[in-house]
Amino acid sequence: MATLSDIGVAAAINIFGAFSFFLAFAILRIQPVNDRVYFPKWYIKGLRSSPLGTGAFVGKFVNLDFRSYVRFLNWMPAALRMPEPELIDHAGLDSAVYMRIYLLGLKIFVPITFLAFTILVPINWTDSMLEHSNLIYSDLDKLSISNIPMGSTRFWAHLLMAYVFAFWTCYVLKKEYEIVASMRLHFLASEHRRPDQFTVLVRNVPPDPHESVSELMEHFFVVNHPDHYLTHQVVYNANKLSELVNKKKKMQNWLDFYQLKYSRNQSKKPSLKTGFLGLWGKTVDAIDYHTSEIEKLSKEISLEIDKIANSRQAIMPAAFVSFQTRWGAAVCAQTQQSRNPTIWLTEWAPEPRDVYWDNLAIPFVSLSVRRLIVAVAFFFLTFFFMIPIAFVQTLANIEGIEKSLPFLKSIIEMKVINSFIQGFLPGIALKIFLIFLPSILMLMSKFEGFISLSGLERRSATRCYIFQFINVFLGSIITGTAFQQLNNFIHQSANDIPKIIGASIPMKATFFITYIMVDGWAGVAGEILRLKPLIFYHLKNFFLVKTERDREEAMDPGTSGFNTGEPQIQLYFLLGLVYAVVSPILLPFIIVFFSLAYVVHRHQLINVYNQEYESAAAFWPDVHGRIIVALVVSQLLLMGLLSTKHAAQSTPLLVTLPVLTIWFHRFCKGRYEPAFVRYPLQEAMMKDTLERAREPNLNLKSFLETAYIHPVFRAGDDSNGEEATEEREKEPVLVPTKRQSRRHTTLASKCGSSFSSLLPEDQELSQI
Amino acid sequence: MATLSDIGVAAAINIFGAFSFFLAFAILRIQPVNDRVYFPKWYIKGLRSSPLGTGAFVGKFVNLDFRSYVRFLNWMPAALRMPEPELIDHAGLDSAVYMRIYLLGLKIFVPITFLAFTILVPINWTDSMLEHSNLIYSDLDKLSISNIPMGSTRFWAHLLMAYVFAFWTCYVLKKEYEIVASMRLHFLASEHRRPDQFTVLVRNVPPDPHESVSELMEHFFVVNHPDHYLTHQVVYNANKLSELVNKKKKMQNWLDFYQLKYSRNQSKKPSLKTGFLGLWGKTVDAIDYHTSEIEKLSKEISLEIDKIANSRQAIMPAAFVSFQTRWGAAVCAQTQQSRNPTIWLTEWAPEPRDVYWDNLAIPFVSLSVRRLIVAVAFFFLTFFFMIPIAFVQTLANIEGIEKSLPFLKSIIEMKVINSFIQGFLPGIALKIFLIFLPSILMLMSKFEGFISLSGLERRSATRCYIFQFINVFLGSIITGTAFQQLNNFIHQSANDIPKIIGASIPMKATFFITYIMVDGWAGVAGEILRLKPLIFYHLKNFFLVKTERDREEAMDPGTSGFNTGEPQIQLYFLLGLVYAVVSPILLPFIIVFFSLAYVVHRHQLINVYNQEYESAAAFWPDVHGRIIVALVVSQLLLMGLLSTKHAAQSTPLLVTLPVLTIWFHRFCKGRYEPAFVRYPLQEAMMKDTLERAREPNLNLKSFLETAYIHPVFRAGDDSNGEEATEEREKEPVLVPTKRQSRRHTTLASKCGSSFSSLLPEDQELSQI
Repeated sequence: MATLSDIGVAAAINIFGAFSFFLAFAILRIQPVNDRVYFPKWYIKGLRSSPLGTGAFVGKFVNLDFRSYVRFLNWMPAALRMPEPELIDHAGLDSAVYMRIYLLGLKIFVPITFLAFTILVPINWTDSMLEHSNLIYSDLDKLSISNIPMGSTRFWAHLLMAYVFAFWTCYVLKKEYEIVASMRLHFLASEHRRPDQFTVLVRNVPPDPHESVSELMEHFFVVNHPDHYLTHQVVYNANKLSELVNKKKKMQNWLDFYQLKYSRNQSKKPSLKTGFLGLWGKTVDAIDYHTSEIEKLSKEISLEIDKIANSRQAIMPAAFVSFQTRWGAAVCAQTQQSRNPTIWLTEWAPEPRDVYWDNLAIPFVSLSVRRLIVAVAFFFLTFFFMIPIAFVQTLANIEGIEKSLPFLKSIIEMKVINSFIQGFLPGIALKIFLIFLPSILMLMSKFEGFISLSGLERRSATRCYIFQFINVFLGSIITGTAFQQLNNFIHQSANDIPKIIGASIPMKATFFITYIMVDGWAGVAGEILRLKPLIFYHLKNFFLVKTERDREEAMDPGTSGFNTGEPQIQLYFLLGLVYAVVSPILLPFIIVFFSLAYVVHRHQLINVYNQEYESAAAFWPDVHGRIIVALVVSQLLLMGLLSTKHAAQSTPLLVTLPVLTIWFHRFCKGRYEPAFVRYPLQEAMMKDTLERAREPNLNLKSFLETAYIHPVFRAGDDSNGEEATEEREKEPVLVPTKRQSRRHTTLASKCGSSFSSLLPEDQELSQI
Repeated sequence: MATLSDIGVAAAINIFGAFSFFLAFAILRIQPVNDRVYFPKWYIKGLRSSPLGTGAFVGKFVNLDFRSYVRFLNWMPAALRMPEPELIDHAGLDSAVYMRIYLLGLKIFVPITFLAFTILVPINWTDSMLEHSNLIYSDLDKLSISNIPMGSTRFWAHLLMAYVFAFWTCYVLKKEYEIVASMRLHFLASEHRRPDQFTVLVRNVPPDPHESVSELMEHFFVVNHPDHYLTHQVVYNANKLSELVNKKKKMQNWLDFYQLKYSRNQSKKPSLKTGFLGLWGKTVDAIDYHTSEIEKLSKEISLEIDKIANSRQAIMPAAFVSFQTRWGAAVCAQTQQSRNPTIWLTEWAPEPRDVYWDNLAIPFVSLSVRRLIVAVAFFFLTFFFMIPIAFVQTLANIEGIEKSLPFLKSIIEMKVINSFIQGFLPGIALKIFLIFLPSILMLMSKFEGFISLSGLERRSATRCYIFQFINVFLGSIITGTAFQQLNNFIHQSANDIPKIIGASIPMKATFFITYIMVDGWAGVAGEILRLKPLIFYHLKNFFLVKTERDREEAMDPGTSGFNTGEPQIQLYFLLGLVYAVVSPILLPFIIVFFSLAYVVHRHQLINVYNQEYESAAAFWPDVHGRIIVALVVSQLLLMGLLSTKHAAQSTPLLVTLPVLTIWFHRFCKGRYEPAFVRYPLQEAMMKDTLERAREPNLNLKSFLETAYIHPVFRAGDDSNGEEATEEREKEPVLVPTKRQSRRHTTLASKCGSSFSSLLPEDQELSQI
């Protein structure tokens, strides 16, 4: 068991590490040559086009102003200075609300820490359970609940504190939910006109032998939303095209690389082998080879574009339908269209850049099969991924290493190295495994069929949290593989599980303290240094960059990464709430993490990250829900712990606590969640009326017409892309129905009759 | 343990009992004097006004046509003869779909029984576990899974059958869900115009100091649904008024009674004492007393009506808002209106007669508190109600009775009485306790705040099922109070619980067979006799009836009682599915129940029951869900049972089964449930278009205007009620806004400006 001094050593190492990261960052960031690594956001927003620096040549690469080295921590107050409304404007609501998660952590834990240290710590410290026992203990344990003897009346203090902490957490959560909900509504109702306010995504359009998807779409909405329908854009299956475009881009990069190489060293024409990885095969001239390859690809691309424009197979049974008013879109998104609830599915269109195009055409039955497959796969991932981690962890304790590698014994028993291994290794082993996780989870979510990036990230975050909860939290408390745990849990009674976990919680406090320092503190400090983007940028800059545009593309601002970041924060919420009553010594470490992460993340949001999408804080219900889960878990574990301490008379009071917490959650869900799922008609109508009054002659159609075009048509080969767009635009505004059966029904008469008279009869018939 | 002959005796008794009930019914129903008891539905529908009988005076009371006595069972084919569409027309969709639950039982269990008897029974019978054991066993047990020795390979047959049964059940369920969903949609889209198709119930209208609820309503919907809003009806708090009206009706009944008494025996004026229950106090003339009381009440009623019409307190913050089109109503019901999701709550208006008026004004916060209270109360009801039942059950076995009442020993040991006690008593003890249950559950649902009778009944049915599952099903398998069970379950592992229950299932087969006979067979036969309504009708007919209208009121047709009937059927589904693999001998008894109940219920629906409301089969998702629950429970218990039989190699296959079943449920939920919750716009638009074409001059407003008036205004004092209605109708179609703050905003200008010009400025200001 680690002693206070072990923790001290680990803390010192971590603080030193974090400090050196900050120092390195402070030096690197003021070098003009790194400007695009540390301030990409400003370049992307067009507010900066070259590093701010002195005019001299050397000054373009190295900062010579020595005064700026002295003020090396001044980025911290700068990061805090930007007010929230400006931050929303600068980085989007998602980012601003994401910052509030860290703030929420501080709001919850600072008062809890204060209370715990003034009330619980003295109570624990002054008791004498451990002194009179034969157990080996450290000073750390004297601060925790372990120091209270069995059946002591002092447990009433812990019980009372559990209530106080729960009420405080719920109070802060409710306040925060209220604020975020109103921020979201305010943001959605803001002046800025956005295409997704008018647009609904329609999926699972039923196949029709007589009409194309586009015509079917038109007829359906002209009939069923006659006063509001404006226009629509069908979705093209451009997955192959975007693959080709990407391939061409890669080739272009290589061509640039070889041309640059050749221009620097004209003596030798660069050559390459055409076989696998350039290791064997025929040797050819690299520049010629790439030029011809690019030409070939260009042809393929234009062929593919033709195919998409002309073939019916390329049109997916989905479309973005735009309405004349926000009211019309709100109505269509919230209602069921057809008798069969699995066709004509409508939902709010995500922002254009938030759309995940590949998943737009998955049919309903396939969706539910995919969901089953992913659920089963995730179950196995969660419960069998743990085996290698547990193996490493058992190696990573002193005795384990001494046993398996006896020749290291003399080194290990040196005091510093001993502390180092105990403080670091278990945390690092876990962390390395966790690095692989998010991409696997993201793949799962993609397979499951979400249609927006924000949805993908939210689902991945949920899975990531469940994974961390089972494998990091439970896995570290009850060592053993997750599958062993599952097996144990099945064979233990519902009563015993919280007891077993609860009883081992106090013993694991030191492990989690080191985990927080390694994963949290060092992780945050590493985040600000951006070592990977720094290296990649300079490599690209050296090998590929010719023009300013290339340099722009070489920047990799990244995003704040909701799917990896949020579950990590949630783990700290869980640890904080679980240990608040049991071992309050953990709390200061969590507070340090939250404040550090808040400052760093705020700085990164302002200067670095470029969000891929804007979901208007749609993730908040998840954040809220997971903190509630953490609260309930902490209460159940406390119940288990106290029942092993023979404080059973407190059980009824402890049972009430989770019941109340869950009730509070349901209350909040009913009260605030609709703000994140639906769009109130009152709001839509207000905004429509205002807009109509201000801009009576607004041409909404032209604003919306090209909003939801597959990005490959935009970004790819520009001239070709526009051709396809024009193709689409040439369609007449209202297409006469071509279906014989419909022309005589009352339903179709409304849209059909008025137009069929405009067409000569034979033309219509010939089309059938 | 009961033997085959015990079961035989019990079955004989029950068959004899049921047969005698049918015989009594056959005789009673053809007596003209009972015509209104056994055929009230026809009177209510106005298709019959006097018994069909011979002309003679005696013939009016007793049937003298002896031929009709011979054909005493001919009501059975008559009940089956009416085709389903006609049944829907005659008794409503709810009733027709309710019949399909019985049919569903037959569809599921007839093939399962056939398979079980041709495959499982021979397999069980030819094995020899029980012969070689020292256990006491009966022939019944030889038919069950108990006869298979530990670890036998024969269990694969049971496993296979579990799969076959599960797939068959799911297949039938899916078919049925599909049929019912399309029946519902067809019914909703049927020609008949109903006010609830155009109407939405709006609740939690925020209080406004400047405007009345009615004005606020008008403004809100004119602004937010400008093209569709038609009219609205505010909800009055008429709870006190309806109390007074009921009291007056009661007094009127007593007055009639005394007047009739006096007219029959003019020698003595009837008198009564005014004190408690007429037992003491001043003696007064009964007729005078009641006449004056009625006069007093009439005055109070008209005062109360005045108060309701004029006071603002009597208007609840809720209203029924009607739209010009079904489309408009469908949109409003499915969307969120206001920023704050707890005000301006909209939902489909229930049918006018389905509205539960008392609950219309419960605010949102209070609703969630009530839900918590009811959940806790239901928990305690479920787990502590069992104590008395268990007490009776322990008395009701032979040894128990002999022990506690030793003097009965000689009687009990007579063979017939012994069988009787074993066959009957435990079932009856349970049944008596269950009679009290539905009204308690109904009270709970009312307190919880549902606003429609159908909603109340559905929730009560859910609770009743949970109660029966825990107390009847689990309580009979593992004898002991529910609280003891709960305590055991908490202390047992998740693995052991199905084992313990599963292992005791085969032993309880005989108990459940007798339960099915007593509760099911005899219950159904008793249902058709209608003993209670028969007696009450004749009492009323003798003491109160003076006019034809009185006689009409004396009829008590009753309803099919979803909240009591459905959970009972579900219990049989549960028993059937659980025992299908374990002891197939139970299945024929369940089939007899389902067919008997089907015939009897169909007869009652055609001739007797008068449904209080029409929810268009909104209950089907509940029915479907509970059968799925039964299926999953049966699979888990089989898993437990097989693991005690050392057939553990089958566990992975058995685990797959509930996973697949739950997935199937989720699939069905997504596919069919929306048809029961939402109303597709396409459907609404089609119906609107058709109607507009057929009846272009329809005055919808007059059709809707009085549809949702509190029944007390209609049924109570007719002249007075209409006064209040007229009062309401006098309101102008559009009320100018009285709120200063709104008059200058853009929002209000749309509806305010055009009308404020019509009013002199000072008049408007004076009203503020």
